[in-house]
Amino acid sequence: MKKFSVLFSAAVIATGLCMAQSPEVKEDFKPSTKNQPGQQYPMVNSQGYARFRISAPQAQAVSVSLGHGGVRGGTDLVKDEAGVWTGTTSAPLDEGFHYYHLNIDGGTFNDPGTNNYYGSTRWESGIEIPAHDAAFYEERDVPHGFVQQILFWSESTNSLRRAFVYTPPTYYSDKAKVRYPVLYLQHGWGEDETAWMTQGHANLIMDNLIAEGKIQPFIIVCTYGMTNEGFRPGRPGGNRFGGVEAFQKVLCDELVPYVDAHFRTLANKDNRAMAGLSMGGMETHSITMARPEMFGYYGLLSGGQYNPTEIKDKNQVKKIFMSCGSKERPDGINTATRAMKEAGYDVMGYVSEGTAHEFLTWRRSLYQMALFFWGK
Amino acid sequence: MKKFSVLFSAAVIATGLCMAQSPEVKEDFKPSTKNQPGQQYPMVNSQGYARFRISAPQAQAVSVSLGHGGVRGGTDLVKDEAGVWTGTTSAPLDEGFHYYHLNIDGGTFNDPGTNNYYGSTRWESGIEIPAHDAAFYEERDVPHGFVQQILFWSESTNSLRRAFVYTPPTYYSDKAKVRYPVLYLQHGWGEDETAWMTQGHANLIMDNLIAEGKIQPFIIVCTYGMTNEGFRPGRPGGNRFGGVEAFQKVLCDELVPYVDAHFRTLANKDNRAMAGLSMGGMETHSITMARPEMFGYYGLLSGGQYNPTEIKDKNQVKKIFMSCGSKERPDGINTATRAMKEAGYDVMGYVSEGTAHEFLTWRRSLYQMALFFWGK
Repeated sequence: MKKFSVLFSAAVIATGLCMAQSPEVKEDFKPSTKNQPGQQYPMVNSQGYARFRISAPQAQAVSVSLGHGGVRGGTDLVKDEAGVWTGTTSAPLDEGFHYYHLNIDGGTFNDPGTNNYYGSTRWESGIEIPAHDAAFYEERDVPHGFVQQILFWSESTNSLRRAFVYTPPTYYSDKAKVRYPVLYLQHGWGEDETAWMTQGHANLIMDNLIAEGKIQPFIIVCTYGMTNEGFRPGRPGGNRFGGVEAFQKVLCDELVPYVDAHFRTLANKDNRAMAGLSMGGMETHSITMARPEMFGYYGLLSGGQYNPTEIKDKNQVKKIFMSCGSKERPDGINTATRAMKEAGYDVMGYVSEGTAHEFLTWRRSLYQMALFFWGK
Repeated sequence: MKKFSVLFSAAVIATGLCMAQSPEVKEDFKPSTKNQPGQQYPMVNSQGYARFRISAPQAQAVSVSLGHGGVRGGTDLVKDEAGVWTGTTSAPLDEGFHYYHLNIDGGTFNDPGTNNYYGSTRWESGIEIPAHDAAFYEERDVPHGFVQQILFWSESTNSLRRAFVYTPPTYYSDKAKVRYPVLYLQHGWGEDETAWMTQGHANLIMDNLIAEGKIQPFIIVCTYGMTNEGFRPGRPGGNRFGGVEAFQKVLCDELVPYVDAHFRTLANKDNRAMAGLSMGGMETHSITMARPEMFGYYGLLSGGQYNPTEIKDKNQVKKIFMSCGSKERPDGINTATRAMKEAGYDVMGYVSEGTAHEFLTWRRSLYQMALFFWGK
C-alpha cells in the first residue's frame, strides 16, 4: 500500500498534475523556523504536514526518518527530472519540535536545510510545527536575560566541563545586588547542555514570564549529564552515560559550589531546585534522594515519579513537580501526584495536551514548573 | 593524473594490500578534535593528512570538498565491500581549522562525524589539523571567563539580535568592580557571531593570556555582521549582506550602548576597539572611518589595510593592527605597515607563517592584537 502511494505520488509529481500528496493537504507551506538562513525547505503547513526537499541527482533512495504523530516509519522522497527529491508526510506531525535525519543510499546524514540540534548522541536535523500556544516562548521586545557559557575545571573527572547559566534580565541592572534562587535543569539521554537553551527556549520562556511579572526571577544552570567526558565533543566515547554517581559528584560537589562562588545565588537548599527531562529526570530522582541536603525543589519531566515511601524525611523537600505529555503515560503522573498529595507533600502534576516524549512537553512543563516553584 | 591515482587507490584498497594512499603516509591517524562525541572519523595523522570515512552503501559517488594546503580539488572516497567509503587527502593540509562538506551523489551534505560550524552561509563540517603552536588556545586548569549570549532589540532592523560577550575571569570575582576595555570583533563573510568563540577559540586565547599575566583583561563582543536579518536563523534571506551602513547603525547606535549599559565597560573610544576578519575587516575599515568618535583601536585581520591619506585626523586613532597569513598577500600588510609607521601611526603588522585565509591565521592574529592593544 505504501509502495503504491509512493509510486502514485511519483506519477502525479512527474506529470505535474498536482503538487499535494493527498487532496486535503493545504498548500500553505512555509519554511520551518528551525531552517538555516535563507533555506526554504523543509516547510510546514497550517495543518502540521511537513514537506522535505533534497537535491541529490545521482542518489538511489532518499528518505526522512521522522516518524511522529500520525506518521509511521518516516517519509520516502521522490525524485523529479532535475534530480531533486521531494516528499510530504503522510499525516500531520504533533505540534512542537522534532529531531530527524535523512537516509541517503543507506547512510545517515542531516538535512542541509535545517540547523543542527544535539539529540540521540549526534547533531540531528530539527523541524518545528508551530504550536497553538507558542506565545509563551516567542521573541518579544522585552528585557532579555543572558545565557552564559561557563567552563569549570572538574577534579573528579580531570576535565574542563561546560555549563550554560541563564541570568534574569534584572541580574545585571539592579543596584540592590539581589541574590536569586537557582534551578539545575538537565537534558535527556543523547542530548547535551545546549538542549534547554536551544530547542527548549528556556531563556525565552523565562524572559516572558518575568516580563509579565508572573514569577520571581531565578537562575537556570544546564550542564552535561553524561559524566565520563569533559565538554569537548571531540573526545572519543564522549556520549556514554558514566553513571549517576559520577554525575552526582560533578553536580553537587563541583558545579554547585562553582556557581555559588561566581553568581549572586541564594546559596542554600531552600532556594535550589533540580529538575530534568527523561534521563535527566532519572538523575534528578536519584540525586535528590541520595543528597537530600542539596535541593529543596524536585522536578521530573517525562522522567518518572516520586512515591511517598522513598522519601526519608518529609521536611527535606519543599515542592515536587511531575509531568509528561498526554501521549506518554499520564496515568502514572496522575496516580503519583494523588499519592504524594495524600501523604502531605506540596506537589503539582501536569500533563501536556497532545504531545509525546518531545520538547513541547518540556517547554510547557518548564513554564508550569516555574510558576509552581517561584510564581508570584 | 588525478583520475589515475583515484583508480590506483581504489585498486590497492580493494585488494587490501595497503591502507595508505602513498608509501610515505604515516599510519598514526587519530580522531580530529572537532569530531562529534564518540566519532572516530575523520582522522588526522602527525603529518597533516586527513582520512575520511562515510557509510552510504548504495551511493554512487562520495567526495570531500576540502581543498587546502597541497590538496587540490578535494578528495574522492572509494567504497569497500561493506559499503563504507574511505579516502585520504593526496597531501598534508595546512595546520589549523578547515571547513568542508561532502558531495554525495551530486548533493551537498555534512560529514556526520564532525560538529558543525557556520561558514559559507551554511553549517559546514569542520576538521582540525593540530598546529605546532596550539598551546595558546589549549584547555587548561586556569580561571575561565564566561561567554554570554545576549539578546538585544534592534529598532533600526525591528528584530531581536544576538551577540556573544566574553568577560574575563576576574569580571565577576573582583570586589573593586573594575571596568574593562572592549573589543568588538567581527566574523567573515558567510560566518556568524558564533565563529570567534567556537572555531576561533577567542575565549580560550584570552583565558590563557590573562592567566599568564600578559595582557590587561578586556571584554570581547561578537555580533552578526549581516544586518538585514535578526538572530533567528530560520528567517528566509538571512544570509544576505545588508550593507555596511545598516550594520554600522546596529553596532554603533544599538549594540555599543546596550553593552555599555549592561556590562562594566570603560565606555569611551580610548578603551574601545573594533576589529574583524575578512569581510569583518572591510566593515571595520568602513565604520572606523565613518564614525571616528566610536573606536580608538582598529584591527584588520586578512581584511585589507589602512593608508595614511584616508585618515582625516591622526589623533582619532591610538593603535592600528593589520595581519594576514603568509599564504595570502603579506606584501600588502608589510607595505601598508611601513607607510603607516612612516606617517607616525602606532601600527603593528603581523604575518601568520604557513597559513592562508583561515582560522589559524585569525587565532594567532587575535593573540598578537591583544598583546599589541592591551599588553602588559
